[in-house]
Amino acid sequence: MGLDVDLAKLPAGLSKDSEGALVFCQAIIEATKDLAVAYKPNLAFFESLGAEGLGVLEKVRGFIPSETIVVMDAKRGDIGNTSQAYAKAFYQNLNSDSVTLSPYMGKDSIDPFLEYPGTCSFVLCLTSNPSAADFQLQTLQNGQKLYMWVAQTAVNWGRGKKGEVGLVVGATQTQYLHHLRSLAPDTVFLVPGVGTQGGDLQAVLSEGRSQNGYGILVNVSRQVLYASPGPDYAQAARREAQRLVDAMKPYFKKESL
Amino acid sequence: MGLDVDLAKLPAGLSKDSEGALVFCQAIIEATKDLAVAYKPNLAFFESLGAEGLGVLEKVRGFIPSETIVVMDAKRGDIGNTSQAYAKAFYQNLNSDSVTLSPYMGKDSIDPFLEYPGTCSFVLCLTSNPSAADFQLQTLQNGQKLYMWVAQTAVNWGRGKKGEVGLVVGATQTQYLHHLRSLAPDTVFLVPGVGTQGGDLQAVLSEGRSQNGYGILVNVSRQVLYASPGPDYAQAARREAQRLVDAMKPYFKKESL
Repeated sequence: MGLDVDLAKLPAGLSKDSEGALVFCQAIIEATKDLAVAYKPNLAFFESLGAEGLGVLEKVRGFIPSETIVVMDAKRGDIGNTSQAYAKAFYQNLNSDSVTLSPYMGKDSIDPFLEYPGTCSFVLCLTSNPSAADFQLQTLQNGQKLYMWVAQTAVNWGRGKKGEVGLVVGATQTQYLHHLRSLAPDTVFLVPGVGTQGGDLQAVLSEGRSQNGYGILVNVSRQVLYASPGPDYAQAARREAQRLVDAMKPYFKKESL
Repeated sequence: MGLDVDLAKLPAGLSKDSEGALVFCQAIIEATKDLAVAYKPNLAFFESLGAEGLGVLEKVRGFIPSETIVVMDAKRGDIGNTSQAYAKAFYQNLNSDSVTLSPYMGKDSIDPFLEYPGTCSFVLCLTSNPSAADFQLQTLQNGQKLYMWVAQTAVNWGRGKKGEVGLVVGATQTQYLHHLRSLAPDTVFLVPGVGTQGGDLQAVLSEGRSQNGYGILVNVSRQVLYASPGPDYAQAARREAQRLVDAMKPYFKKESL
């Protein structure tokens, strides 16, 4: 479940500030923590609240049960010594399990994140937004599209490292998912874009699971978070989350849920 | 001047924490503010200090004179509503003039930043790190390398917008700079990588200026910041900054300095 805490969308009765954001996140997590495999805080929304917002993020991280995966959606990527600092911020200070990264600057911008055992760093591959086509769908001279080349290259970066490499594949890109899965049969895919962005949950689960039938983390944000604009927002979020879990169940072996 | 505040490199006598980082930045800015055209805080180092670090960044922004350019080196890029939140964080809350962005997600990830008049959003084009070659130097089917395609595409994104688009071109990439300048004759280039990373200042200034003889912002970070490990660090930074200004002078018209 994505935590994209947009002040303008906070339910009635909550203050449109850091305090309101904190109360909202706490109630949402409390209402859904037995249903969510992972929470994915979206850094932008916390950063847009200034230094206070980062304080909220630290508290929100504390509300998430220790057995639940925390994916920091940050899409970072920089030269080596800078990526080291980002990796420390997310994996050490915030004790996250996962972070999203941009591949544009190549291997040495990702490597520092792979020094943290037990983590999975998700590299952007094929994103859910319309402009993903601008570069990701460009064809290279070797005949492959850029996102395919990113997928194969990034998976190789992860070999023999302490941390794992995963890929971000937008749920709106189901026509490419089958082929992408064949290129990276065992890699974990983080799939945002179901719900408000229009991704098709059934198609994602049919095409996107790994060889062992798992290997996929489907993210939903706005559809659950803002299921009700009223004071029943937490119960409404839970209902929506339950509905999604029920829709996903048939695609996974019984004992996994 | 880049503000890459690495606690491990703080001069003797400063505490290796947020307080030390704040004192360091204040002293560096105070010692160099008549020499620097712009300061470029590197977000990773502030984020690695947690919520406190963002508080330090807000204060550091306040130390920078209002007539000096502030470039937030953040390398962000996300779907539209998320990029809107980042744009608010940097351009509205922190009152910055400029931010660095990653192009991988395409136009709609950059557009929200271009809504702010008087700003320049620098899109990563050809970066200074060794792994820049992984994707940026891949050749597309149209015969162009990816970074060239990014340059031309990103420059077009800026046409008719309130905010300007610039390009990040690493100082270690001087062999590509001439051609890149011909592709984007009037675009501002942000050129990091002089100094510790090995970029050649003279080559950068010979090849990188725009048609009007300006259009280039050369960044130096570690070479100036950590010019002395002792209590004379601020004076040493000033000496190093002065040396760089003197080296750059011959490349610009007299009245501009």
